[in-house]
Amino acid sequence: MSEAFPKISKVTYEGKTTKNPFAYKFYNPDQMVEGKTMKDHLRFSCVYWHTMRGNGSDPFGVGTALRPWEDGTNSVTNALKRADVFFEICQKLQLPYYAFHDRDVAPEGNTLKECNANFDKVAAHMKELQSTTGVKLLWGTASLFTNARYVHGAATSSNADVFAFAAGQVKKALEVTKELGGEGYVFWGGREGYALLHNTDMKRELDNLSRFLHMAVDYAKKIGFKGAFYIEPKPKEPSTHQYDSDAAACLNFLRQYDLLKDFKLNIENNHATLAGHSFCHELQTCIDAKALGSIDANSGDPLLGWDTDEFPYDITQTALAMLTILNGGGLTTGGVNFDAKVRRASFTPEDLLHAHILGVDTYARALTIAAAIRADGGLKDIVEERYTSWNSGVGKEIEGGKSNFENLERYVFEKEAANGLSDNISGSQERILSYINSFV
Amino acid sequence: MSEAFPKISKVTYEGKTTKNPFAYKFYNPDQMVEGKTMKDHLRFSCVYWHTMRGNGSDPFGVGTALRPWEDGTNSVTNALKRADVFFEICQKLQLPYYAFHDRDVAPEGNTLKECNANFDKVAAHMKELQSTTGVKLLWGTASLFTNARYVHGAATSSNADVFAFAAGQVKKALEVTKELGGEGYVFWGGREGYALLHNTDMKRELDNLSRFLHMAVDYAKKIGFKGAFYIEPKPKEPSTHQYDSDAAACLNFLRQYDLLKDFKLNIENNHATLAGHSFCHELQTCIDAKALGSIDANSGDPLLGWDTDEFPYDITQTALAMLTILNGGGLTTGGVNFDAKVRRASFTPEDLLHAHILGVDTYARALTIAAAIRADGGLKDIVEERYTSWNSGVGKEIEGGKSNFENLERYVFEKEAANGLSDNISGSQERILSYINSFV
Amino acid sequence: MSEAFPKISKVTYEGKTTKNPFAYKFYNPDQMVEGKTMKDHLRFSCVYWHTMRGNGSDPFGVGTALRPWEDGTNSVTNALKRADVFFEICQKLQLPYYAFHDRDVAPEGNTLKECNANFDKVAAHMKELQSTTGVKLLWGTASLFTNARYVHGAATSSNADVFAFAAGQVKKALEVTKELGGEGYVFWGGREGYALLHNTDMKRELDNLSRFLHMAVDYAKKIGFKGAFYIEPKPKEPSTHQYDSDAAACLNFLRQYDLLKDFKLNIENNHATLAGHSFCHELQTCIDAKALGSIDANSGDPLLGWDTDEFPYDITQTALAMLTILNGGGLTTGGVNFDAKVRRASFTPEDLLHAHILGVDTYARALTIAAAIRADGGLKDIVEERYTSWNSGVGKEIEGGKSNFENLERYVFEKEAANGLSDNISGSQERILSYINSFV
Amino acid sequence: MSEAFPKISKVTYEGKTTKNPFAYKFYNPDQMVEGKTMKDHLRFSCVYWHTMRGNGSDPFGVGTALRPWEDGTNSVTNALKRADVFFEICQKLQLPYYAFHDRDVAPEGNTLKECNANFDKVAAHMKELQSTTGVKLLWGTASLFTNARYVHGAATSSNADVFAFAAGQVKKALEVTKELGGEGYVFWGGREGYALLHNTDMKRELDNLSRFLHMAVDYAKKIGFKGAFYIEPKPKEPSTHQYDSDAAACLNFLRQYDLLKDFKLNIENNHATLAGHSFCHELQTCIDAKALGSIDANSGDPLLGWDTDEFPYDITQTALAMLTILNGGGLTTGGVNFDAKVRRASFTPEDLLHAHILGVDTYARALTIAAAIRADGGLKDIVEERYTSWNSGVGKEIEGGKSNFENLERYVFEKEAANGLSDNISGSQERILSYINSFV
Repeated sequence: MSEAFPKISKVTYEGKTTKNPFAYKFYNPDQMVEGKTMKDHLRFSCVYWHTMRGNGSDPFGVGTALRPWEDGTNSVTNALKRADVFFEICQKLQLPYYAFHDRDVAPEGNTLKECNANFDKVAAHMKELQSTTGVKLLWGTASLFTNARYVHGAATSSNADVFAFAAGQVKKALEVTKELGGEGYVFWGGREGYALLHNTDMKRELDNLSRFLHMAVDYAKKIGFKGAFYIEPKPKEPSTHQYDSDAAACLNFLRQYDLLKDFKLNIENNHATLAGHSFCHELQTCIDAKALGSIDANSGDPLLGWDTDEFPYDITQTALAMLTILNGGGLTTGGVNFDAKVRRASFTPEDLLHAHILGVDTYARALTIAAAIRADGGLKDIVEERYTSWNSGVGKEIEGGKSNFENLERYVFEKEAANGLSDNISGSQERILSYINSFV
Repeated sequence: MSEAFPKISKVTYEGKTTKNPFAYKFYNPDQMVEGKTMKDHLRFSCVYWHTMRGNGSDPFGVGTALRPWEDGTNSVTNALKRADVFFEICQKLQLPYYAFHDRDVAPEGNTLKECNANFDKVAAHMKELQSTTGVKLLWGTASLFTNARYVHGAATSSNADVFAFAAGQVKKALEVTKELGGEGYVFWGGREGYALLHNTDMKRELDNLSRFLHMAVDYAKKIGFKGAFYIEPKPKEPSTHQYDSDAAACLNFLRQYDLLKDFKLNIENNHATLAGHSFCHELQTCIDAKALGSIDANSGDPLLGWDTDEFPYDITQTALAMLTILNGGGLTTGGVNFDAKVRRASFTPEDLLHAHILGVDTYARALTIAAAIRADGGLKDIVEERYTSWNSGVGKEIEGGKSNFENLERYVFEKEAANGLSDNISGSQERILSYINSFV
Repeated sequence: MSEAFPKISKVTYEGKTTKNPFAYKFYNPDQMVEGKTMKDHLRFSCVYWHTMRGNGSDPFGVGTALRPWEDGTNSVTNALKRADVFFEICQKLQLPYYAFHDRDVAPEGNTLKECNANFDKVAAHMKELQSTTGVKLLWGTASLFTNARYVHGAATSSNADVFAFAAGQVKKALEVTKELGGEGYVFWGGREGYALLHNTDMKRELDNLSRFLHMAVDYAKKIGFKGAFYIEPKPKEPSTHQYDSDAAACLNFLRQYDLLKDFKLNIENNHATLAGHSFCHELQTCIDAKALGSIDANSGDPLLGWDTDEFPYDITQTALAMLTILNGGGLTTGGVNFDAKVRRASFTPEDLLHAHILGVDTYARALTIAAAIRADGGLKDIVEERYTSWNSGVGKEIEGGKSNFENLERYVFEKEAANGLSDNISGSQERILSYINSFV
Repeated sequence: MSEAFPKISKVTYEGKTTKNPFAYKFYNPDQMVEGKTMKDHLRFSCVYWHTMRGNGSDPFGVGTALRPWEDGTNSVTNALKRADVFFEICQKLQLPYYAFHDRDVAPEGNTLKECNANFDKVAAHMKELQSTTGVKLLWGTASLFTNARYVHGAATSSNADVFAFAAGQVKKALEVTKELGGEGYVFWGGREGYALLHNTDMKRELDNLSRFLHMAVDYAKKIGFKGAFYIEPKPKEPSTHQYDSDAAACLNFLRQYDLLKDFKLNIENNHATLAGHSFCHELQTCIDAKALGSIDANSGDPLLGWDTDEFPYDITQTALAMLTILNGGGLTTGGVNFDAKVRRASFTPEDLLHAHILGVDTYARALTIAAAIRADGGLKDIVEERYTSWNSGVGKEIEGGKSNFENLERYVFEKEAANGLSDNISGSQERILSYINSFV
């Protein structure tokens, strides 16, 4: 097969000073960072949907993207050719993983059976491509939101037949994910939510969602799928009120329905900020619940109120995210997934490469900055020093479960009568930000 | 003692057509709605902090409020006089309940002991005023955020001595709340949160917060306080990241730390919208978790990004909130608390009355609209009809726990091969909104 | 031709208590309000794009709308049939006006000539339909944003050929608008703006935009088009930074480039709130600049950060908008245009009617409330009373241009030494909101 | 007088690798950048209000700041001592300029005369301190928002006496600014705006505002004040609707009232983002109108909806702002003013220094990055290339005023019939962001 990018052999590391726009300035896959290669730390993943199926359309206009490999049909043949290009891109960009929805890779059919048949044909080809390129599947997922049948949701639909169809669809997606050696499987809420509370039975819908997820866990066990399950929080889109609005909402749901042992979260930067939290906050929330699974690396525009899915470019903010992740033990089953799309005005095929290079270099650089901060140890010291009072005396007693309101009141009365209570120490935010900037 | 509002005897119901600005157009306390008086449905509560301590200052200017009863001192004497005016206001407005923070009602002292002594003096007077006026305490709470010692939080402070002081302060506030017959006690997060994640040990802080709340529960049991405990969610203020950011975050925390049996939530309209949810969404989230305790009725300005604490005036939105509450079983231990302040430019004492009249009438009218919608039954029918498919066949099997992915796939294969799956029915949002408007 | 809605003859006024969902509860076209019919006050307009071309697709899924009259082609034949249905809808809903983009009504061709030819065929049919139904054209406009050529804008494109094409397109749209007796012509910014300042020459782009608008004015004169020209402000979408972000930005541009004499503004509720202003603020800004032209009546969801284009349903907010408009002299050349779309889950043809009924009744009711407030005169009195100090003495001198800093300083020195300066009077916001609510 | 920071002699440049937290890593005042010293490019200015009068209070709690030089009184004596500390800070930080409000530096009196007398005493001392330290006044301004009299605005007050008082106050502030050699004078809108449109006469208020500004211009001429006049846009705070909401709103007002020749704008980063624009957008808007005067360097938190006035720390965003400014000709009369406050938890005196060091180094580094980008020329080339089509042919004709709709239509008809119109070229946003990042 002829290549889509015949002039570009491979995007490799050329160092910070290169002028070659098709080279990495910071991503050096085999470079060791904290005893592990960059590649193993970051586990970059390319997404099929934006990379191959994004055409630059938006609510105000049609697609702009020039994709010479497309033949304009929704055929299986076109889908197979498209997969070739996708794996060429992954390979040339040295992205070790990818992710897909069932309906990105293969055309819809008129019935579930037809859908499955199309999916099987393309999946067989992808398995081959995985084998020839070495690119692996980070996670699979099913699109439970594109088709009109999911207008009221999938597992939370008011129509039980839609729940049944979704069950069949996820069954198949799990099977294919297993077949392709997928290391995980993601549930993004899609249209699980509502537009108008007053025509909605929220409790019934959430009960049904929990049933759906339990069935998925059961079926995965049955077929021997050992990959991780992830829930991906997101607020506001496409339903006005998404049930999985942020990490806390997901964890609350998972705890309520006894699913926390089976699921971790896939945290997306832009979903975090849309929910009013920082990316780091959502990451830390998961880490503290032992539930950080994977991340979606795309960022948003803080001046816009929707998920813009931009390739990450903010060096400092990404470094702080990587710092949080490294402090939390790093990514294990998951990876850094570029759920990102080129801007509508970046319509050439080459822009797909430029965009991934931007994202990859931003994360690679962030990783080295985060590691440098950790090596220096300054932040760790600051945190430890701030909480010193908890390591002995009254603090230690409280944390040891030996205190109550009465003896704490007595403690205050006595200490105030003697020397007075201990002073607070400054939070020193500005000094810390200067310190962090010194690593950028 | 001379009255603060000698010209106003009592604000009473005069009906919709009255031109008297010091009369209720809709709130008729003893009017029966769904077999209960308006008074018992709404359980209105006046807050001490905004009503008596709000002076119209904002980050850009000093106070504007004219409060002739204030003598300009922070003395206990002034505090006692102020309490008289407060109960006069509650009584003249026919508000059956009130709420307070310890530090609103009595001056701070230099030590916890001095604080407690001041508090006791004022509390004794308030007990008397409760008795003479019949006004009751809906809930008490402690201010764990005003004093400089709480700069890094109270139960989540990096300074163990601050935790201890907060423990002593809440101990006292619980005792006083019990003494005054308080029907509840509220924990609003105050400064429990952080400004900068990178100098913060979030896990340790949340562990400590849970210890604090368990101590509170234990102490309440010990002294025989039978009132309800509430957590009040709020995002963004005063900490950039508040731990109790919304209902789901609170429920997640309560579940994680085994506190859900002891706490319900106090949901504020403006806190809901700041968190990116609707008031109704937050109410329903609590109702479905059997955790709706009480509400703060103040609303915000959707164009502004902070808690403006405005008296509620939106008739339709308030009606939908009351509808949600009535559908969820109504308020029992809690009430409709006006955590609201007059605008800075509404600086006369009379504006305090006008503002409460606005809020009270808005809720009273909302209650009657909600009841009319319920009596008509149209919305209930719409919801039931939308979920009919779950009452039999495949839906019933799923809800009965008798399905799995395999038999659902088989069901889809077979039904698609026969007649096809059932069609979705329209959500009819616009028709429903017309229907709702017809009750306004 | 067979009707699309054979079971519905005409949506007529049946009064508030009707249970017929296909009747107006408030809109009684010939009812007199302030000496003019409701119809003439509101000049309702139905839009072609959302009503006929909206299919319920969103960035997360395909269309859901059931439109049995569509044959699935992009042919002129289908376009002609679609026009029949549109005029049937306008007529049955008693909407006296409509609005369209060139590309809504007729299919694109491969060249401007082909586009024009298609457009001419459909326009001729629309002219006939106008004549048989009596429905008139409120305004026309050209879609300078849907086609991929407009990826970098139209009049502000970095590609001069695109400017030229846009010029040709608007030339034709003006001709057709004139031919159809259009009472106005709208320029909505479309993609006039930028995504990244650092690849953009903003000054050059705005200079070119002004040249484009001057050409439009010149050509309109040449062909004798006497309709009003409107600019429609909007921020954020589709360009990250839209040049016409709000009313002030448009007025600033129009003043700078000497276009204010030729243009008025078309103010959309949801565009106002996206820009951080209230609808009333934007209306008043235009009124004070003698530049209010027309309004788009669709509202948004304050919890969502994009233009949701919902049919208006908020009675009180709409009443305040109508109050502002009536106080400003009412709509003359413009109208109340429903630039609104049914929700994705409202997918039946009947939902199109329900949605317009919601919007029409909301505005009709708003008109009567606004008129009642004006008849009562209470608000007018409040405003006049607040500014009394400007009608005599120092205020009159200042407004008469007879003061300067020196004599004002002297005035203050003297008045402070005598009785002191005049006190402020309360803004009474809460009392005023109660007053306003009493008319709802 | 004893120093406030006796242990710190002067904060000097020590280079990127220094571990001394009281040294600059990037700001080297005399280092040449594009032929001018860093000092002359940046013209840093320290503000009196946050630096000396900020005490860490917020709407939820009292001040936390430790300021040992304060004696707790609002006396002139205390004000004089405070001025000493302020100039010590400016000098030790090597900030060449400062800015103040009249009421920051000197206590209010009961009358305008008393205010002026206090102000004179402190101003005399400041003049002396300027002389001994070499620190100069970038601009002065008057606080027309703190005092309760300004509750309804100053120049836009509904009370003419308040306008008069404000006139007297600004008269004095102009005199003092002149006396101190101030290089500019700022009008920040303060409370010029409204909370409720329906009790407001917006037109009358804006007419009065224009009268006020004309009086100020006239008086400045009269007393020979040659400094620049600036308006500072800001939305939302403290009035819900601020008249000067963004750059475009200010420019529109200045054009309407024939004031554009007399005023430039002072653009604040955080005000820009609150208004929904980027800092760069607001800067460019001013530059294109030849109206960029000065900047306020403080940034905000994109997750919070109010002006957080944080010291700038974002290297890349600041570099892009400096790039915009350098491309626009640099700062001339204005400077980089730190209208920024330490976080409430940064309560030590030393935190004041740390915070300014953070801000100064961020801007110094930004300046060198911007200069490097300009030296490389890559961005300039990209912009020029994008607009090439405007330099000849049809583009040149359009820009030369030689085109109209008719000949452009003809051009399109002919070119489409021949080779077709010119293709668009990609906007290449991702490649450009990689390019920009390579300079960080």
